[in-house]
Amino acid sequence: MIKTSSDPKHPRFLSNFYRDLLSEGVRKGITSLQGLTAHGRGETFDYLMGEKTCSFARVSIQAAASLLLLSKFPVISVNGNTVILSGKGLVKLSQLINCPLEINLYHASKLRERKIFTYLQNLGGMNILLPDKTKIKGIYSNRKMISKSGQKMADLVFIPLEDGDRTRALIHLGKKVITIDLNPLSRTANDATITIVDNIVRALPLLIQVITQFRQLSRNELQSKLNSYDNKKNLARALRFIRKRLAELA
Amino acid sequence: MIKTSSDPKHPRFLSNFYRDLLSEGVRKGITSLQGLTAHGRGETFDYLMGEKTCSFARVSIQAAASLLLLSKFPVISVNGNTVILSGKGLVKLSQLINCPLEINLYHASKLRERKIFTYLQNLGGMNILLPDKTKIKGIYSNRKMISKSGQKMADLVFIPLEDGDRTRALIHLGKKVITIDLNPLSRTANDATITIVDNIVRALPLLIQVITQFRQLSRNELQSKLNSYDNKKNLARALRFIRKRLAELA
Repeated sequence: MIKTSSDPKHPRFLSNFYRDLLSEGVRKGITSLQGLTAHGRGETFDYLMGEKTCSFARVSIQAAASLLLLSKFPVISVNGNTVILSGKGLVKLSQLINCPLEINLYHASKLRERKIFTYLQNLGGMNILLPDKTKIKGIYSNRKMISKSGQKMADLVFIPLEDGDRTRALIHLGKKVITIDLNPLSRTANDATITIVDNIVRALPLLIQVITQFRQLSRNELQSKLNSYDNKKNLARALRFIRKRLAELA
Repeated sequence: MIKTSSDPKHPRFLSNFYRDLLSEGVRKGITSLQGLTAHGRGETFDYLMGEKTCSFARVSIQAAASLLLLSKFPVISVNGNTVILSGKGLVKLSQLINCPLEINLYHASKLRERKIFTYLQNLGGMNILLPDKTKIKGIYSNRKMISKSGQKMADLVFIPLEDGDRTRALIHLGKKVITIDLNPLSRTANDATITIVDNIVRALPLLIQVITQFRQLSRNELQSKLNSYDNKKNLARALRFIRKRLAELA
């Protein structure tokens, strides 16, 4: 049960609720303070898009489901914000596609890594990886620290919520990247193979639902869905949608 | 001296720097956790506007300077974010126009009020007010708690960064409100008498500069500057600017 200081009458009740949830995540030692601000950045894009899953996000979710089912060794990268906002969903996804959850933090903290590990275990997470001494080149932050049994070997990394450097570095290594990013202009959004421009709390349950449906499909059918997807065009649709909304709101 | 974990090479160095500053504010017991997320919301609008003071903000700053010099009893409302981001500037402004700084927090905390009080005193603040048992109607949050020697008596309240309810309530009481709000769509931005759509860290030094210049002007000259200002038109300009930027960035 989450305590929230927000009043249900407040027009920003739901975003206040998630703010309180993440603040509780800080008190638990899971979310970083800077993660709260990063969340706020996303909030604005969500607000500009009307806080709904748009058609361009649904298209990306279908492509993401196909790619996750087609890939040989996918890895789900998690951080303090994602586990607090969508911990259960992330554990469910890792079970559904039988892949590890790898903890990867922007701000280095062994204590926070352990807390996230235990938190995911308590949610039923079985295959959880911590960074070892393996590194990715081209990243300045602690995000360079990865697991040799996870991202190092992966052909696909699912990175919900990210700060940019890592997606580019992983793509340079020939890996594919799926991201959930509310900012269609971000480096992550533009570098990723598939970008779901949506709020993780709405997109992840939908992704799980689509994967469950798509499990019935053949590899050819999945590949054909994937081939018809164009990430750049989809991001441009998201931007056009925001512009249209701004014109309406003005 | 602020410790920052941000790398100067990071494309978001400056916003990471202010994130770290506010995180430090949390550790000092001054900024609320939810304040960090609120800051992030603003960050996105700032990013969409190119992180520069735009011409529409300069126009509002001139109008705000005129109104601050014309008003009989202005009060500056401060919270955990504003004092961390612009504490020195707020103290300077209060000295320049000889008016109180009134502490007003969304999340009730006597401890945080005292810490902000001491923080402002250490910056040279002389006239600092705390909420007493006086209340404004129509506000659900702790923001309703005001000072009888401050906002209660004020004809003008300067509220940099705000969440909406209070501006409307103050306007209903016949008071004037100047705000700094990066979101031109917010209730505060739309209800205020004058809205400066800019980042407080850039806008406040400019406001102080303009007030220093405008002190030479007569009341008639100030009034004429004020009369030529239209807040709604100015907000529409800000929105058009964001739309144009989005089109360029797409």
